[in-house]
Amino acid sequence: MNKEFGEELAVRTSQVEAIIGKYLPKEEGCQKTVIEAMNYSVRAGGKRLRPLLMWETYRMFGGRSEVIEPFMAAIEMIHTYSLVHDDLPAMDNDEYRRGMKTTHAQYGEAMGILAGDGLLNYAFETAARAFELEPGNGQTGKALAVLAQKAGIHGMLGGQCVDVEAEGKPLSEDMLRFIYRLKTGALLEASMLIGAILAGATGSEQKQVQEAALELGLAFQIQDDILDVTSTTKELGKPVGSDKKNHKTTWVTLFGVEEAKQEVERLSCQSVKRMEALVVKNEFLASLMTALIHRKK
Amino acid sequence: MNKEFGEELAVRTSQVEAIIGKYLPKEEGCQKTVIEAMNYSVRAGGKRLRPLLMWETYRMFGGRSEVIEPFMAAIEMIHTYSLVHDDLPAMDNDEYRRGMKTTHAQYGEAMGILAGDGLLNYAFETAARAFELEPGNGQTGKALAVLAQKAGIHGMLGGQCVDVEAEGKPLSEDMLRFIYRLKTGALLEASMLIGAILAGATGSEQKQVQEAALELGLAFQIQDDILDVTSTTKELGKPVGSDKKNHKTTWVTLFGVEEAKQEVERLSCQSVKRMEALVVKNEFLASLMTALIHRKK
Repeated sequence: MNKEFGEELAVRTSQVEAIIGKYLPKEEGCQKTVIEAMNYSVRAGGKRLRPLLMWETYRMFGGRSEVIEPFMAAIEMIHTYSLVHDDLPAMDNDEYRRGMKTTHAQYGEAMGILAGDGLLNYAFETAARAFELEPGNGQTGKALAVLAQKAGIHGMLGGQCVDVEAEGKPLSEDMLRFIYRLKTGALLEASMLIGAILAGATGSEQKQVQEAALELGLAFQIQDDILDVTSTTKELGKPVGSDKKNHKTTWVTLFGVEEAKQEVERLSCQSVKRMEALVVKNEFLASLMTALIHRKK
Repeated sequence: MNKEFGEELAVRTSQVEAIIGKYLPKEEGCQKTVIEAMNYSVRAGGKRLRPLLMWETYRMFGGRSEVIEPFMAAIEMIHTYSLVHDDLPAMDNDEYRRGMKTTHAQYGEAMGILAGDGLLNYAFETAARAFELEPGNGQTGKALAVLAQKAGIHGMLGGQCVDVEAEGKPLSEDMLRFIYRLKTGALLEASMLIGAILAGATGSEQKQVQEAALELGLAFQIQDDILDVTSTTKELGKPVGSDKKNHKTTWVTLFGVEEAKQEVERLSCQSVKRMEALVVKNEFLASLMTALIHRKK
């Protein structure tokens, strides 16, 4: 990561943080506890990659309105809810994430379930605010439909379900690709596609962006598999070696580290090239996508 | 319930069932299990009261398009998801509902969580199909916003959270009214309000309908409290006496059965009167609302 890009990324990320913060529910009323639990989960941090990608794709196609903001917050809420429910005792049973107690470990199991539900629901409540922000934008309904589709049973959630069922079983390459495409890829697809849709990109532009996001998502997940065996707990901020411990089939267990690295490289290059082939350009977005290949955490 | 109304109700309910069925996800693909679990939960039955109220309110204001259908299915999915998550071991830990195994008892706890998430998400995915069905209806975005608000932390889910936290504690009348308004009232409000919005009712008509729905919701929940002490398990289709067993504060524990009955009567009359004061009429809807006062299950 060169210094200039690093600085720019820090600035953009803090702008994204501010936008997310603006759309979080107020911690007040009798429902205060669940709202606190929701905000605790969102504030626990992360790279804010999905809203970043959405915003930059929106800018790339000339989007200039704040209509994108509720969608940026919404996709981060959906990403967060999936982590909250994934961590539950009946699921992965994780007590810590990013060095902080997971939501159910902090607020109890019932509140962990309800906070996850709250975030998923609030994501759509938040996205629906876009209808007021820019009533004339005929694309908002389509953007909301994409958000719901890519988060649901034919997107992220579907990937998680197949993943849960596959636990402890050997997986084929095709099956693993399917799970990655849904579990990790779908929300990245949604991010970039929603950015393109709301900015008024053409149908063929939307298609290109979606393909690029899909490849990026696969590369991102395979990189995750690699880091689980090559990184350290300190560097990664979460326990390494967890895939082996859980007997998970990953790209690394199927093909080894070296081939996995080559696949990341191949997918990422393809993804970046697809974006470069578009008439509009966003150099920062290109750098961001490239940085994801070389990420260490 | 007079015979004519009873027959009409049976016809309408089966039409509603058909509409819901049409919008359920296909049980196919690698995610088949979770989709089966979702559909199992929805098909487990119920009175379909929310879509019925929505449809009749829509008709009352002259609505004639199928744009209402995805919203009818969506509200039933949201109602169902809330039951699925409510039944989980970390929540009410119920193994049976309406004489059938609850979702987690049938499919395991992880799948219970995921099926609930799936239904909540699919509700918005389904509702968003209304944008394609009637692209010219400028009210669809508002209807979707109402759906999200009334289902979320300032609606049904908020009520559930307060209810969970209040367990085992004495409650004041105000607090109980607050919980009932959110937990039961909010989705009934959403149902009738969405019907009015999509049919193009005026602002003041929408306000009247919402108030009427709120009173109906309170009456409905207090009637629930009454049936828990006056009905039999066989008649009700679920265990009676559960409130006492769980040391729950209800309208009956606060005021006794007789006063509770009077409150149901008062609220219901007020609600029906409010609807009668509107320029448009729907006799079936009025009968339906009245029938809810006298329901035995």
